[in-house]
Amino acid sequence: MQQSIEQYMQQLGKQARAAAQVLAFASTKTKNNALQAIHDALVAHQSQILAANKIDMEKGQQNSLDAALLDRLELTPKRFEGMLQGLKDVIGLTDPIGEITDLAYRPSGIQLGKMRVPLGVVGMIYESRPNVTLEAASLALKSGNAIILRGGSEALESNKALAQVIQNALKTTELPHEAVQVIETSDRAAVGELITLTEYVDVIIPRGGKGLIQRITNEARIPVIKHLDGNCHVYVEAQADMTKALPIALNAKTHRYGVCNAMETLLVDQAIATTFLPEVAKLYLEKEVELRGCEQTQAILGDAVKAATEDDWHTEYLGPILAVKVVKDMNEAIQHINHYGSHHTDAIITENFSLAQQFLARVDSSSVVINASTRFADGFEYGLGAEIGISTDKIHARGPVGLEGLTSQKWIILGHGEIRE
Amino acid sequence: MQQSIEQYMQQLGKQARAAAQVLAFASTKTKNNALQAIHDALVAHQSQILAANKIDMEKGQQNSLDAALLDRLELTPKRFEGMLQGLKDVIGLTDPIGEITDLAYRPSGIQLGKMRVPLGVVGMIYESRPNVTLEAASLALKSGNAIILRGGSEALESNKALAQVIQNALKTTELPHEAVQVIETSDRAAVGELITLTEYVDVIIPRGGKGLIQRITNEARIPVIKHLDGNCHVYVEAQADMTKALPIALNAKTHRYGVCNAMETLLVDQAIATTFLPEVAKLYLEKEVELRGCEQTQAILGDAVKAATEDDWHTEYLGPILAVKVVKDMNEAIQHINHYGSHHTDAIITENFSLAQQFLARVDSSSVVINASTRFADGFEYGLGAEIGISTDKIHARGPVGLEGLTSQKWIILGHGEIRE
Repeated sequence: MQQSIEQYMQQLGKQARAAAQVLAFASTKTKNNALQAIHDALVAHQSQILAANKIDMEKGQQNSLDAALLDRLELTPKRFEGMLQGLKDVIGLTDPIGEITDLAYRPSGIQLGKMRVPLGVVGMIYESRPNVTLEAASLALKSGNAIILRGGSEALESNKALAQVIQNALKTTELPHEAVQVIETSDRAAVGELITLTEYVDVIIPRGGKGLIQRITNEARIPVIKHLDGNCHVYVEAQADMTKALPIALNAKTHRYGVCNAMETLLVDQAIATTFLPEVAKLYLEKEVELRGCEQTQAILGDAVKAATEDDWHTEYLGPILAVKVVKDMNEAIQHINHYGSHHTDAIITENFSLAQQFLARVDSSSVVINASTRFADGFEYGLGAEIGISTDKIHARGPVGLEGLTSQKWIILGHGEIRE
Repeated sequence: MQQSIEQYMQQLGKQARAAAQVLAFASTKTKNNALQAIHDALVAHQSQILAANKIDMEKGQQNSLDAALLDRLELTPKRFEGMLQGLKDVIGLTDPIGEITDLAYRPSGIQLGKMRVPLGVVGMIYESRPNVTLEAASLALKSGNAIILRGGSEALESNKALAQVIQNALKTTELPHEAVQVIETSDRAAVGELITLTEYVDVIIPRGGKGLIQRITNEARIPVIKHLDGNCHVYVEAQADMTKALPIALNAKTHRYGVCNAMETLLVDQAIATTFLPEVAKLYLEKEVELRGCEQTQAILGDAVKAATEDDWHTEYLGPILAVKVVKDMNEAIQHINHYGSHHTDAIITENFSLAQQFLARVDSSSVVINASTRFADGFEYGLGAEIGISTDKIHARGPVGLEGLTSQKWIILGHGEIRE
């Protein structure tokens, strides 16, 4: 059995690599036509896909999956509509492939530049949401990559149905249908194989819980673009404009709780703590946000705040809880952020130019924000059109990853017969 | 002992991380002053360093290291001069850090852009050449990174002497001397620790033999920018201009043998094989290059060529041997290159515009060359000023890696109080 999983994954890998070589020089028109064919096939086979999803939902209920997971798993007609719209959006995106930049003559006479090219084969590992299957497949195709998809076992029927529709649609186009492949087994050994297929897979993108990501990071032999967690901060500096600080502090925490770009710790400069904290606390308590503060915060807010422990500074609550800390100055704020944060998104509220400038340079996060909510850190707000994930890595892609994150640049030399002297 | 190596490496890592936080916002002037201080200290302590190198050389001779390795190990006054010049060159390079690009307003009102920042801490693992110690240290400092250096055990005394001079020089500057640290033990366990220091090290750059690189790729838990091998090709297409093809084919093979951008396999279109092969073979035989050909090549060249085996297509000879294959057309050439090559540097010689265009798009190598020698693929020829390695990876940095490869881009948001609606 172990042997056969290995052979199965080798076969998927080999097929993906062969497909990638065709995709790499497919024209924009060919790729858009293929995406349109997938769109039309999805419209035609909506009921089939929703029926498959229903089987997953029923199995999930039998297995007592929790409500949040069932919610993410469910494909409603409205969500299906959203998937189709997402696909149309990807068709509308500018094709990044083939772009040549920095083409200039070198003293030797050669003309040197860079050309944007696909990575090749993407391995995508994610949990229950079946709409990720389509999002990831469409971004991969648009950027000229083949993709091997491994969704959660609880979404297997939905994903198999989606894959079948996608592959059948691709068969009517100029692109190979192996450009999009779904791993059709829930055996966990398949993941272990996928992340070590060094010959056939160029990058692994995991989306899911911390446990999944860490397993993959430890075991992968292929570069991983990973998204760990979002422990985001807002630092309200002494010279903050209160008409900006209050709405931003409220928005960053309460606009949506379960998202990675929500604020989890509020840092307040001691110079304004006694005035700012009571005002902002009132807003949070109206929204029933639980506050956990340092000693100084407790001294100012009294019973309105619980005592924060060391753990609180590390925690991504993803819920209506906020850690609050009073800091001496910006240095302490930056040290706190760089030490406890997850290098995702962190903001300062200040009117002081030089402090803002320093904060930008010194905070080691994928998005650093001045006078705006951390909630802006996502692919759609950044104009990427769609996002395949948010990277908390520094290598290759940082922050929201769109089409460009699925590409690399190779060097090109246009010569006239030059040889090296 | 194992325990103490672990503690030692943890300490180096912790110190490097602290140093990196200072380096990240050091001004260009501060960094250049530090590099100048290192330059002056090296001049003042040249004899001390050369004496340490002499100890390594004597030990190497006692241990019967081979001549090539001893040659790379040796620091002559002339090579020392070269090291100093390299350092001056790095001082002269434009500082990549802090560069802000693509700053533009989004519909939400925020101003979004990208800022170039250091990676943080670089772990550099290399073999015998002590001059790499200075090259790597100076590139890391200039790009605002701390670096932990692990040279070959045979160069330990040289590297310790260099590290001492560098660190003492740094102590006279505004930068922390832990910005540059050399691992001062030849215990191989130190490498195992370095490549798993996920908390303290952001990227591993190995330079050395295939065995070293593969061990590191397998065991590292940190992203690796690796340079595997250079199995480079020149494809002489049917419409090649012979006045370009002959000198390029000769230069790519014989300009220098032991380098990764030398050609290892010559592909010749069957349409011109009977005229081109005898001419080019004559040039190679004058240089005493051994030819190993496919059946068609043998039929044309007779005794002047040995039979090539499957192994030959895979081999990076790094010497005066060349594999030669006649191909049916460009498709076969590209398939051969993408299959047998190492995705390093590959060239086509042709006057046909459309074929050149296709070759550029379809060859999956870090440098793709039209009508020029593969030998141009290096950091100096590309104008990077200096190179820390040549990446055969697709992720993050591809081909020659200079200062920019030691940086990443973070997103920055300049707001005016915007919140997410």
